[in-house]
Amino acid sequence: MPSATTHAACCLATYRCYDEKADFHKKALGIAVGLTVGSWTDLPDARKAEMEKHLGRVVQVDVHEPAASEPASARYADIQIAYPDVNFSRDIPALLVTVFGKLSMDGRIKLIDLDVSDGFRSAFPGPRFGIQGVRDLLGVHDRPLLMSIFKSVIGHDLPALREQFYQQAAGGVDLIKDDEILFENPQTPIEQRVEVCMEAAAQASQVTGQKLLYAANLTGPTFGLIEQARKAIHAGANALLFNVLAYGFDALSELSRHPDIRVPIMAHPALAGAYYPSPYHGIAANVLLGKLMRLAGADLVLFPSPYGSVVMPREENMAIKEALLTDSAAPLKRSFPVPSAGIHPGLVPLILKDFGGEVVVNAGGGVHGHPMGAAAGGRAFRQAIDGCLAGTPLRQYAADGHPELQAAIDAWGLKE
Amino acid sequence: MPSATTHAACCLATYRCYDEKADFHKKALGIAVGLTVGSWTDLPDARKAEMEKHLGRVVQVDVHEPAASEPASARYADIQIAYPDVNFSRDIPALLVTVFGKLSMDGRIKLIDLDVSDGFRSAFPGPRFGIQGVRDLLGVHDRPLLMSIFKSVIGHDLPALREQFYQQAAGGVDLIKDDEILFENPQTPIEQRVEVCMEAAAQASQVTGQKLLYAANLTGPTFGLIEQARKAIHAGANALLFNVLAYGFDALSELSRHPDIRVPIMAHPALAGAYYPSPYHGIAANVLLGKLMRLAGADLVLFPSPYGSVVMPREENMAIKEALLTDSAAPLKRSFPVPSAGIHPGLVPLILKDFGGEVVVNAGGGVHGHPMGAAAGGRAFRQAIDGCLAGTPLRQYAADGHPELQAAIDAWGLKE
Repeated sequence: MPSATTHAACCLATYRCYDEKADFHKKALGIAVGLTVGSWTDLPDARKAEMEKHLGRVVQVDVHEPAASEPASARYADIQIAYPDVNFSRDIPALLVTVFGKLSMDGRIKLIDLDVSDGFRSAFPGPRFGIQGVRDLLGVHDRPLLMSIFKSVIGHDLPALREQFYQQAAGGVDLIKDDEILFENPQTPIEQRVEVCMEAAAQASQVTGQKLLYAANLTGPTFGLIEQARKAIHAGANALLFNVLAYGFDALSELSRHPDIRVPIMAHPALAGAYYPSPYHGIAANVLLGKLMRLAGADLVLFPSPYGSVVMPREENMAIKEALLTDSAAPLKRSFPVPSAGIHPGLVPLILKDFGGEVVVNAGGGVHGHPMGAAAGGRAFRQAIDGCLAGTPLRQYAADGHPELQAAIDAWGLKE
Repeated sequence: MPSATTHAACCLATYRCYDEKADFHKKALGIAVGLTVGSWTDLPDARKAEMEKHLGRVVQVDVHEPAASEPASARYADIQIAYPDVNFSRDIPALLVTVFGKLSMDGRIKLIDLDVSDGFRSAFPGPRFGIQGVRDLLGVHDRPLLMSIFKSVIGHDLPALREQFYQQAAGGVDLIKDDEILFENPQTPIEQRVEVCMEAAAQASQVTGQKLLYAANLTGPTFGLIEQARKAIHAGANALLFNVLAYGFDALSELSRHPDIRVPIMAHPALAGAYYPSPYHGIAANVLLGKLMRLAGADLVLFPSPYGSVVMPREENMAIKEALLTDSAAPLKRSFPVPSAGIHPGLVPLILKDFGGEVVVNAGGGVHGHPMGAAAGGRAFRQAIDGCLAGTPLRQYAADGHPELQAAIDAWGLKE
């Protein structure tokens, strides 16, 4: 193998491979050669010189032999391979097919990390707004944001949507998103839905004095997505929700950089559970919902939280947060982390402790199911956020003239 | 819950859920309600009447209690839910987000089957050519087809590609496909690649007397795929290869029905291993590489075989085959199954036994690595197919004046 001291630009993929007896160094070499130039040792020297710039390289092989107490099946290695950028075009499908196309099917192997080169990254503008841009649109710079989610809206008509929107908005939320399973439909087509919801937003704004972003669900045929986005934006949509994994990362990447789509895009994690939860197969959450979402230009990224009804382990959540916020992906703007599912006001202290101030607190049932109604649900969350920022224990803050927060804590409890 | 004796059109999703102590009937009801109307028991009666057509329905719950010899963790249930078609638009992203969007993240749950309604299916033209159409293009109706794969072509120039193409074609293969990791690149851009390869095909045709389909790899930005396909076809491409899972099923669905793309499309399974191998998570191979590929219009579908280097269990292969060939998906045309990876001539008897005559025998190393060269590799496969169809044991057939097959068996063995 060549041992050049300098290397051309590469993307680095890290795999966790489980195997009771494999020679992991040999396996690593097989990946590095097999997924790039195909064969190496058989090549004549002159050809090797030409092909060296295409050859993958084994960067690291960390073998974890099972402890005495563990079964043989616990034996694994973390293998890192460098893939020369020159081998693939500058798009996420090409990157993923290169590093985990065929290899995904080759035994117990999971893609646990993926770092692109500066050159590859430079082909991606990333989030158009990012955290700062979303805050600028809302005029909110000094606290975590609050989002609520339409609930149970299949089969509802426009007046019912409008009313549900208004009730959510009146409680002081910053963002409202469509349910991800509300598709284009004759009863509430996106243009009319956006129109009545933005009317309700304006009406609520007169009460709350706040701005609000409404993320309308962008659905339908792939090659019609740009036109569908244009329609929504023309009708007044000031944000979009997108089921990224149902369409591929490249669709997000192209939507987010399209000159006609100058609104924040919120990435929904629908289908993500088909990839990340197995230790033996798939793509880890920090890659899937962290690095690739930011690279593809998501301004906000939803994912299951460690706190609520649909849970993801805390360390996986923190790895997503790191991927969305880290400076090492600069110059890409940062994406807002939105830990979701089963969130109620009594979980706000945990969320802020884990995520800090750059987070969107996001709730569905925790807003709509509030004992005093959805508007009170929004207020309870805002009170929880204010109490945390003031450094006041939430029980005390609730008792001190914040009955909506008190009712939420009574209903769902408090974790501090 | 309503107990109507007739039901509106529904798509049926079947999940395997593992849980040591869950009430699986309750869980099933939670899915049926939660992923459709959201809540049911709280609704007033008048509202129930309006919403009933949107309500999901539990079709079946089969609980498998662990045997005495099994651990508690082996407890699972197969749950089948009917989702009313009226809830989602007629595209695969909407279908998948509905049946396995949020749910994919909710514990140990795998989507093991998915049957669409006749109404939903009627929105999909399916494969434009299908098995019969591909056979008609090639003029071959009486035997399994033979395909070979470009190998190690990253970094090669056009003359090298042309030569490799010619050598493969000269052995009598029916189809040649690009390597799926060959992306659009300055050295061998798709138009020039297609041009030189189709020249080589014409040249080989004068020797073999056969027609040949060349599936050029369709890559690059999603919203440029149609234009890229047009370029390839304009340059003479008579088939396309597509990494479906990197772009989403809908991209395939729209490409396959596009009026300008009147060539067979071959679906590559790159990234499929991120979904199907875990028993606890993801989407089963028969859905991913079978039903959805056919619905989306793949004329040929590649997947790992049970025989070769990258293996899939035989029963999963047979389930894919069934999905691609069954009459129950009519009026969709049938898609050619292409079991792949590590195939050599000595495996042809097994392939034909498992798949019958409607199969594409597909090889990379088994053609290029033949001791007498790639053209001999093609001939060895054709001899293996002919021998099987004649009902002659392959060792005898090889000894009877078929030295290329003999050399292949000597090199790689024979399984009958």
